[in-house]
Amino acid sequence: MQLEDVYRYIDANQQRFVDDLIRLVKQPSVSARGEGINDCAKIVEEMMQNVGFSTLIIPEGQGNPVVYGEIKSKSSERTLLFYNHYDVQPPEPLEEWMYDPYSGEIRDGKIYGRGVSDNKGNIVSRLKAIQAFLETTGDAPVNLKLVAEGEEEIGSPHLAPVVQKHKKLFSADAAIWEFGGTDRKGRPMIYLGLKGVLSVELRVKAATRDVHSANAPLVPNPAWRLVWALNSMKNEKDEILIRGFHDNVEPPSAEEMEYVQKIPFEEEEEKQDLGLSEFLHNITGLEALKALLYRPTCTINGFLTGYTDKGSKTVLPKKAMAKLDFRLVPRQVTEDILKKLKEHLKNHGFDDIEVITHGSTEPVKTPIDDSFVQTVIETAERVYAKRPVVYPTSAGSGPMHLFRNWLGYPVVSVGCAHAESHGHAPNENLTVEGFVKGTKFIAAILHDFSVS
Amino acid sequence: MQLEDVYRYIDANQQRFVDDLIRLVKQPSVSARGEGINDCAKIVEEMMQNVGFSTLIIPEGQGNPVVYGEIKSKSSERTLLFYNHYDVQPPEPLEEWMYDPYSGEIRDGKIYGRGVSDNKGNIVSRLKAIQAFLETTGDAPVNLKLVAEGEEEIGSPHLAPVVQKHKKLFSADAAIWEFGGTDRKGRPMIYLGLKGVLSVELRVKAATRDVHSANAPLVPNPAWRLVWALNSMKNEKDEILIRGFHDNVEPPSAEEMEYVQKIPFEEEEEKQDLGLSEFLHNITGLEALKALLYRPTCTINGFLTGYTDKGSKTVLPKKAMAKLDFRLVPRQVTEDILKKLKEHLKNHGFDDIEVITHGSTEPVKTPIDDSFVQTVIETAERVYAKRPVVYPTSAGSGPMHLFRNWLGYPVVSVGCAHAESHGHAPNENLTVEGFVKGTKFIAAILHDFSVS
Repeated sequence: MQLEDVYRYIDANQQRFVDDLIRLVKQPSVSARGEGINDCAKIVEEMMQNVGFSTLIIPEGQGNPVVYGEIKSKSSERTLLFYNHYDVQPPEPLEEWMYDPYSGEIRDGKIYGRGVSDNKGNIVSRLKAIQAFLETTGDAPVNLKLVAEGEEEIGSPHLAPVVQKHKKLFSADAAIWEFGGTDRKGRPMIYLGLKGVLSVELRVKAATRDVHSANAPLVPNPAWRLVWALNSMKNEKDEILIRGFHDNVEPPSAEEMEYVQKIPFEEEEEKQDLGLSEFLHNITGLEALKALLYRPTCTINGFLTGYTDKGSKTVLPKKAMAKLDFRLVPRQVTEDILKKLKEHLKNHGFDDIEVITHGSTEPVKTPIDDSFVQTVIETAERVYAKRPVVYPTSAGSGPMHLFRNWLGYPVVSVGCAHAESHGHAPNENLTVEGFVKGTKFIAAILHDFSVS
Repeated sequence: MQLEDVYRYIDANQQRFVDDLIRLVKQPSVSARGEGINDCAKIVEEMMQNVGFSTLIIPEGQGNPVVYGEIKSKSSERTLLFYNHYDVQPPEPLEEWMYDPYSGEIRDGKIYGRGVSDNKGNIVSRLKAIQAFLETTGDAPVNLKLVAEGEEEIGSPHLAPVVQKHKKLFSADAAIWEFGGTDRKGRPMIYLGLKGVLSVELRVKAATRDVHSANAPLVPNPAWRLVWALNSMKNEKDEILIRGFHDNVEPPSAEEMEYVQKIPFEEEEEKQDLGLSEFLHNITGLEALKALLYRPTCTINGFLTGYTDKGSKTVLPKKAMAKLDFRLVPRQVTEDILKKLKEHLKNHGFDDIEVITHGSTEPVKTPIDDSFVQTVIETAERVYAKRPVVYPTSAGSGPMHLFRNWLGYPVVSVGCAHAESHGHAPNENLTVEGFVKGTKFIAAILHDFSVS
């Protein structure tokens, strides 16, 4: 049987695959500060070419290059696209790493390194699954497209125009997204959606310079203005007070809630990981999980004004700013929320507050009953010999809507990580076992999609 | 006539006096960063000794040295104390200075330099007035004490225990405070009080580390906590909502208001200086001046949380802090206000907010009908040949209460500055004329106090 041969090839070449992954991990690619980006893009392109991809580097305007590749199938008309990213989070704090974050050190069956789990392990697992197919059968089971962008960790600010401009390149019948893995019990996790994000900055100015706080009875204080404006936007119950904010919120369907109820929400581990004795407003269990997945939020990411060093300074600041993100759920639309935010500020007398947008991605979801979703669920169960955990949506965000909403095909997210992979944190790692299994999972998806 | 001789001496020695002032200005003494403090204290002590003071350096615990000196009068039992400070504000922004801030450059009759107006010109004017008396008459008209501390510009954090410990040294019948000058029309300004200040920092913590803002439905946000807490303390009308905050506020007396009405409040110049088209809540005229002098305030001096650099970061911060100052009026008491603030936070459910105190000085006032005040007013009118502008109190703050409230004598503030002296700002300056006149004014006060 064809797929068994592919699995055998993967097992036989495991060490070479791991070596390739380590090579990629050793190449820093921190988009937040433009570190090693072009070199990493080149390695990814070369790896794709080695597998058999025809490649193309798409310059993202002023952004980091998008690496794109295609392989035509001789036997299928269908096309599967893989979305990945080669950029990584900054490795800091360095002192908390057991090994150099760019060493690719292997210990006790775990490969350590910044980006090994998010997202370089997944890039290599996709490439190796495809390579295994090509080497074993001489053909790609379906037409394949792989896109690896270099700005996911900073919010993919330049990807939308690239997709807009190259709709044909990015067209497909279905897509595999960049993240996923197994939970603490080894069950594969499948994600079908993301929240949207609208990132804004509020700025207030008053006097033309910082003045002595003795002038407080006469001089407007931008810090107080910002406090009052923020307070008008969300109350102590965490209820967002912007008129119309919740208008288009679509609650989870009954079918979605069935799946949500089956998600093993490891509450105590979550609390421990977040350093909390209890969640916000003491929510627990299914209520907490439902909030995590389906509640739109408004978060202060940062606030800066005046003197913030040691001790005190009797200053009345000339300006203040706050950074916020709104996490949105289907069918909220970032542009609409931005408009409502501006209206809110105006209606509450905060005309003096300037709103700057730092980026946005739309909420997105692929229905559970989509046939591609069902294929991936069945494949997962067979490969892992465990019932997968299906997340009808997730708390995270990303540019998935460009593919799902603009190009119209189903998008499902799976990957090689495990419960202790520490993505975005020190000691990020991937198990060799999880990486190999994840590679086989992709191979099986390729096969099952080709025959479904 | 004795005083005429003293004036003549001052005129004859004007150049030497200015040279001494420039010497003092050339010595940096930035208390905010401990720059040149000890060297400056030594120069002040040497200048005092040269005049004839017996001096003493009082170490302020961990603080900067207090320079103290005495001269006994052969002819009078009465004692006049001068409070001054030899420390200065940081000179930054340097690029806005026309001359090096430590050059003591003289142009068009103005001496430029950091501290020349606040407070080194006044230190030298006091010393030179005393010198002129001693050299001309061979005696001090009254017993003299001069104290120059080195931490006024950072809130005099270590002066209280020094005064407490050395009450006898600091005892006197009256005191001249460190600041003052003439207004745009050349009228001498006399200040009889200060607001108090309570400087606090509010700190909130939640999760043990910064977390991804995707967790917002579950994780408390210290930035929001702080926004809500601050909002509970003061509303958009700038009304302070802390229960009991206004309890002890003593409104200005009818007599005070008579003097306040005579203060030439140069509203348009003030607005221009503060970079405003209108004052807070559009107050104008006497109402604005009364607010400036008599309204207690709560000011956000600084606020810091989370990510505040370029662009956006989807972070939910683990901590947030705000620095505030409360400016208080007689008979508010800093300790009482601190207690009420803590009660307020507790009663509004903000037990999680820690309150740290960074320093405090009490509000203070000497009554207008005090005989020393009347003497200074009459002396000013005679010296400047103009009716002085009497401020029954002022919007500023300082450790005056240690002298007025603890030691019980009248304290009056006068000095050599002019309307464009730019204290605390670039191009700080003093006119040679103002300096000489201010020196004569002090000589006249010495004389008039001795015979009053």
